[in-house]
Amino acid sequence: MVDRTQQPRALGVAVIGMGNVGSQVVRMLQVHGDELRQRVGAPLELRGVAVRNPHHDRGIAPELVTTDTESLIARPDIDLVVEVMGGIDPARELIAKALTAGKSVVTANKALLADYTSELAQLADRHRADLCFEAAVAGAIPVVRPLIQSLSGDRINRLVGIVNGTTNYLLSAMAERSDRYEDLLAAAQELGYAEADPTADVEGHDAAAKAAILASLAFHTRVTATQVYRQGMTRISAEDFAAAAAEDCTIKMLAVCERVDAGPGEPAIADGGKERLAVRVYPALIPRKHPLAAVDSAFNAVVVEADNAGRLMFYGQGAGGAPTASAVMGDLVMAARNKVHGGRAPGESVYAELPVAPIGDILTRHHLRLTVSDRAGALAAVAGEFARRGVSIASVRQQLDGSHAQLVVLTHHARESVLDQIAKSLAALDSVTSVTSVLRLEGTEE
Amino acid sequence: MVDRTQQPRALGVAVIGMGNVGSQVVRMLQVHGDELRQRVGAPLELRGVAVRNPHHDRGIAPELVTTDTESLIARPDIDLVVEVMGGIDPARELIAKALTAGKSVVTANKALLADYTSELAQLADRHRADLCFEAAVAGAIPVVRPLIQSLSGDRINRLVGIVNGTTNYLLSAMAERSDRYEDLLAAAQELGYAEADPTADVEGHDAAAKAAILASLAFHTRVTATQVYRQGMTRISAEDFAAAAAEDCTIKMLAVCERVDAGPGEPAIADGGKERLAVRVYPALIPRKHPLAAVDSAFNAVVVEADNAGRLMFYGQGAGGAPTASAVMGDLVMAARNKVHGGRAPGESVYAELPVAPIGDILTRHHLRLTVSDRAGALAAVAGEFARRGVSIASVRQQLDGSHAQLVVLTHHARESVLDQIAKSLAALDSVTSVTSVLRLEGTEE
Repeated sequence: MVDRTQQPRALGVAVIGMGNVGSQVVRMLQVHGDELRQRVGAPLELRGVAVRNPHHDRGIAPELVTTDTESLIARPDIDLVVEVMGGIDPARELIAKALTAGKSVVTANKALLADYTSELAQLADRHRADLCFEAAVAGAIPVVRPLIQSLSGDRINRLVGIVNGTTNYLLSAMAERSDRYEDLLAAAQELGYAEADPTADVEGHDAAAKAAILASLAFHTRVTATQVYRQGMTRISAEDFAAAAAEDCTIKMLAVCERVDAGPGEPAIADGGKERLAVRVYPALIPRKHPLAAVDSAFNAVVVEADNAGRLMFYGQGAGGAPTASAVMGDLVMAARNKVHGGRAPGESVYAELPVAPIGDILTRHHLRLTVSDRAGALAAVAGEFARRGVSIASVRQQLDGSHAQLVVLTHHARESVLDQIAKSLAALDSVTSVTSVLRLEGTEE
Repeated sequence: MVDRTQQPRALGVAVIGMGNVGSQVVRMLQVHGDELRQRVGAPLELRGVAVRNPHHDRGIAPELVTTDTESLIARPDIDLVVEVMGGIDPARELIAKALTAGKSVVTANKALLADYTSELAQLADRHRADLCFEAAVAGAIPVVRPLIQSLSGDRINRLVGIVNGTTNYLLSAMAERSDRYEDLLAAAQELGYAEADPTADVEGHDAAAKAAILASLAFHTRVTATQVYRQGMTRISAEDFAAAAAEDCTIKMLAVCERVDAGPGEPAIADGGKERLAVRVYPALIPRKHPLAAVDSAFNAVVVEADNAGRLMFYGQGAGGAPTASAVMGDLVMAARNKVHGGRAPGESVYAELPVAPIGDILTRHHLRLTVSDRAGALAAVAGEFARRGVSIASVRQQLDGSHAQLVVLTHHARESVLDQIAKSLAALDSVTSVTSVLRLEGTEE
């Protein structure tokens, strides 16, 4: 008989969901078994794969495949659960059951995490299991772990990211080709860069979920997706890109998470600790020289600004089966290592509990395009609306467009609520035919 | 009496060395005590600072300051040691003593780690302490932790980095202003961007130490600084930049770590696992569209290419007191957290033990500038030398330079040993007045 007393016990892995990411995770477990064993300190064995349709041939031994996810997770020989099925239900309950049974969970489920990290992290704590989710934000790019660990001794002030591949692909294509949004979307759907129902991406829901996760980690505060101000990018046009180019800018779908001062009438930070957070997702102009301006197509990037580290950028592939699976596997190796050597991954840290400010209280810069009928009088009337509400204008451009003129106004920083009122007042002016577009400008020092 | 049973014990921190980094670490410990306590789960208390000159006023309570480093480390109320004194001795012995006493150590000492990680990591393992060194490579940029943890489930193939701020500052300045190296160095020294003795930076010793650390982590193999092929950047001239610009390239001091195939006559990877590593540091041309080309001045960046993650880039401030201290503090919080909650940071993983190939075996592309006396005959003679040794030329440019002509040859990939022989043969040709410069070209697919 072989003496196995010195052999560490193999760890059993269950993979829930066999889409793009799940099938890559299974492949990597099967191909790199020997390397993984040495990195973990024990063999990692794939012991079950939960799928919806068991008859689809996936090249996996049939005895590993099941549709009974609950029973798979409950099996005593499963130590680690990889959840890559997506969606809130039943993922939420399945993960809760796994954690309650002391099994560590690796998930890429941003929609779930954006709203239920708190509940799940508490379960993980209580049952001394790991809950890891590097893959939930920005695919292969290590950003969750750097925020939780590497920057844990610093103070993060702002985080600006391109965290959705579909919208970045669409906006990059629009910047290059100035096709219409509808045509680009159809092409992207054909190429597999956009879903048949693109709502979650183009309306910013996906980015908002990721912004909630990033803000929670960066500011040690529980932020949920519903607290994230969100605007889609479906109304961005080739004209918006032309107008952005005139300011030496491009347009990107941005997730912005930052600390902001207390609102007016509230005690300042120094007095009462009334610091707040602003978390928002929208298409915005950014200067071409900003590091995020060069992040094209399906790539993602996150810029982090911290007191001591200064400005950091993390860049890479934000989506796709293999890149996302790379992040899942990194988490799986670390969670497995903790099972072998003891210890736990650092979990949620939400002691700060900073309030999230309503969008109206945030200071942003606006870029407004107006169609005006009367050039001579329009500029004075428009400028008057800004002046009356104390908003400083950085630049005004006038362009002739047939019989009408276009007026492009770029403001300095001002409160969103005031800028919003101004846009409404402008639309009511006699000399203004229409307020064609209102976009923010991000990534400038002023 | 206050009931303190529920209060976790405070952890004692000793800081060894009070230079730029040490003084920032002390400041951050003092200013952010409350936040750090919540992130660690216990108070972090600065209990001693070891310095060389106790009479220098640093604004620290005098009773904390000592010159007796050994006694400070040995104190039972010290749980964590931050070593930011630099140098091999006595840092090596001090860290060994701390680890042997079960104290976790956070260090930014790349020179030490490049050669002694193995010895120190074993001590850390044996005494269940943490040895953390995020700050040793690329300052504030999280790259050590992503390599050890985030990419632990992937297979890294190549890593190319700008990891020395001084040389990147000098080369960026040369690219902009085309001043002479000596003048730029003097200016950099005045600004504090270069040391009085710049040897460690400009000759590539600092980058080689970092390359050794990065290669060890990326390839799960012990690589020491002496195994890193190294060339300095002191002979780079404005003419080199002009020649690089003609190829739409710039020049950067690069650390390149990659997997390479087995040498000729040796079994291929598939047969005998004879994969090798190439680890080198030198100034090289890179295409202007390569992400590293835009990394200017004192910034650092590391590009990692992995099987599944694809290409990732990490960018930020690579040096300076506060950015480096940010990385130290992240390690300190994590090591302290492990003291409170149990567990250990993932340590060295060197199971692969891949051999490091000698530079002569590596395939690179060369960019040669020759001064030739006889334009008509020279091109044929020069081309003949490349052809005879089977090296394919990608492009040749001829430029008149007074009575002489300059010939600029860019090769495809070829073995360094062969390219070296060609350069020697070219210098011996009658029609070649001199081989003015030989540089590599990195960052192209072919």
